[in-house]
Amino acid sequence: MTDPLHILGVSGSLRRASTNTGLLRAAGTLLPPVVTFEIADISKIPPFNQDLENELPAPVREFKDKVRHADGILFAVAEYNYSVSGVLKNAIDWASRPPADNVWAGKPAAIVSSSVGILGGSRAQYHLRQSFVFLGIRPVTKPEVFVTFNTNKFDSVGDLTDPEAKKFLEALVIELVRLTREVRATARLAAAP
Amino acid sequence: MTDPLHILGVSGSLRRASTNTGLLRAAGTLLPPVVTFEIADISKIPPFNQDLENELPAPVREFKDKVRHADGILFAVAEYNYSVSGVLKNAIDWASRPPADNVWAGKPAAIVSSSVGILGGSRAQYHLRQSFVFLGIRPVTKPEVFVTFNTNKFDSVGDLTDPEAKKFLEALVIELVRLTREVRATARLAAAP
Amino acid sequence: MTDPLHILGVSGSLRRASTNTGLLRAAGTLLPPVVTFEIADISKIPPFNQDLENELPAPVREFKDKVRHADGILFAVAEYNYSVSGVLKNAIDWASRPPADNVWAGKPAAIVSSSVGILGGSRAQYHLRQSFVFLGIRPVTKPEVFVTFNTNKFDSVGDLTDPEAKKFLEALVIELVRLTREVRATARLAAAP
Amino acid sequence: MTDPLHILGVSGSLRRASTNTGLLRAAGTLLPPVVTFEIADISKIPPFNQDLENELPAPVREFKDKVRHADGILFAVAEYNYSVSGVLKNAIDWASRPPADNVWAGKPAAIVSSSVGILGGSRAQYHLRQSFVFLGIRPVTKPEVFVTFNTNKFDSVGDLTDPEAKKFLEALVIELVRLTREVRATARLAAAP
Repeated sequence: MTDPLHILGVSGSLRRASTNTGLLRAAGTLLPPVVTFEIADISKIPPFNQDLENELPAPVREFKDKVRHADGILFAVAEYNYSVSGVLKNAIDWASRPPADNVWAGKPAAIVSSSVGILGGSRAQYHLRQSFVFLGIRPVTKPEVFVTFNTNKFDSVGDLTDPEAKKFLEALVIELVRLTREVRATARLAAAP
Repeated sequence: MTDPLHILGVSGSLRRASTNTGLLRAAGTLLPPVVTFEIADISKIPPFNQDLENELPAPVREFKDKVRHADGILFAVAEYNYSVSGVLKNAIDWASRPPADNVWAGKPAAIVSSSVGILGGSRAQYHLRQSFVFLGIRPVTKPEVFVTFNTNKFDSVGDLTDPEAKKFLEALVIELVRLTREVRATARLAAAP
Repeated sequence: MTDPLHILGVSGSLRRASTNTGLLRAAGTLLPPVVTFEIADISKIPPFNQDLENELPAPVREFKDKVRHADGILFAVAEYNYSVSGVLKNAIDWASRPPADNVWAGKPAAIVSSSVGILGGSRAQYHLRQSFVFLGIRPVTKPEVFVTFNTNKFDSVGDLTDPEAKKFLEALVIELVRLTREVRATARLAAAP
Repeated sequence: MTDPLHILGVSGSLRRASTNTGLLRAAGTLLPPVVTFEIADISKIPPFNQDLENELPAPVREFKDKVRHADGILFAVAEYNYSVSGVLKNAIDWASRPPADNVWAGKPAAIVSSSVGILGGSRAQYHLRQSFVFLGIRPVTKPEVFVTFNTNKFDSVGDLTDPEAKKFLEALVIELVRLTREVRATARLAAAP
């Protein structure tokens, strides 16, 4: 249970002081020591256009490489207009194409979200779970983490300060690590003669 | 019933020969003569970033103006990964921000989609309908138009050739025009002393 | 604006002290004087079976009559397992059948929900909104009312005691009444020569 | 890989000649010899009422026992009004209650559906998948089986006659059996010292 693992964080918000990106930074501090963590930069990824698939833009190539090499994914999904932010969805779309090179397939993943309002980004989380069915992503089922009424739970640069939210977040990343190890062990079992 | 109206088409796919954009072109030929139609170019709209809201990028400003001046909207939603394409969602997100300048609010809208597969983009349509609740968009309820197994229903440049799909599409645009007129008449009623 | 109207309340929970049914009772006290209100009893409605459509069970017949005669509907949707309660969905299914006698078609409706948890039944509300598309129900778009963490917001018999929730509920029923009048006025316009 | 397994089929339609129930019967003939199969009778399950939880109605008790003893579940979800049939949802709701006795937790499950229309019950399948998140059901991700335009794919008693649909169905039940074995093996791994 002490194999090194690498988790990639992907945030749906590009705002500098984004609380969703703040959740990812906090998650990075809550992981066990053998687990490395990195937040992908998706700000340079252009709008998806299938006509460009043969000459993949550099930021897309780099992002796909990061996803490919990650053992598990942690999505911080910004909810815009009751669904996944277009920015996040666009990065996901690129990395799923062409189908023969869908780098999400088989990856374990967890979702977090934060919003100023009452529902904490949950509507976006359920839409993202539907995308997982197609992508072949293996989601953490529980716990689910929704940070509601986030105004006083983060500081001015978007760092998480709320102790209760931290506790939920820790439970989630521990489960993501457990699931990631399970997926690996199962793959080994299946590959055994 | 002969007031001039203007409908704006928005396509979720940037591919040159996109069948979704092809549905919009076909819709444009099926509208009554007093209704003008235009397809928005969203290819230059950058990834949404709230930090840029005070200095709106030019392609965003132009897109918001087009939405603002349209009487009704026709979305051709490309389904990527069982949801709305990131490209389309990103354009929608920009035009909804800041909330005080959500240019979608109150607009009547219809949705079409086309896919190579069995479900014709329907999963994306239902996700988009959920966004409409927040945006305050007034959707056409019926008919719903899903072009399934589209391989032989469009020519090589993405123009719709299937007569049955054209018939469904025509019924949809007629209903969009009717709803647009109803929304106007209701607004007049509400404003009357 | 003073025509009498009749609103029918339908609750997804059969529990005697249900907080969802409590929301309906509270709504009944918040309606303008010319609007009458009744809560349907759906506890006797048996499991839907298409083979029985020619000999409609009495409780189904009575329920359909109540829906038919209502000018607007207020659903209190109990969320069970992240969706609409089977009890409520079953009553809705009966009243939509056969398609030629879908008594929901064209009715304005609003949704409320209450839950012990963080999301207030919202997941069920969005599923119900998807059913409205097929049923031809015209939903109130805003406000949306989700009563979260309901443990201290109702008394032991399920009556709403929370003043803030009452305020939200009142805004919702006022909008339902407004929409119901709008739907009627629009129908008159459409019928005029 | 030859341990005996038991799969329980649950159909959302009570109609005698239901094509959804027909899909379950067909699935029963496509399972490997060591796998036993049974279709649950949910027609006697009354509307869920939390007040009755202490004196569980006999048909509910029997249904919960059947679920408890099954190694995997095959749902045939009848789509009514763009969602899961109330009949099926009601049976699911009973078997999830009280939370401490949610007999679905941890079960592997697959979904099939059949409809006369263009979308084959898919809208109901995605709603059911959302319920799985709460229930702790482990879904088969792929393949997904939607039988569209079912009028000529079943005989008059609801038996599946379409060879292509049979092929898809077979792929699904094989994956359900594989997943069920994987879930068992993983549980054994986790329990090992």
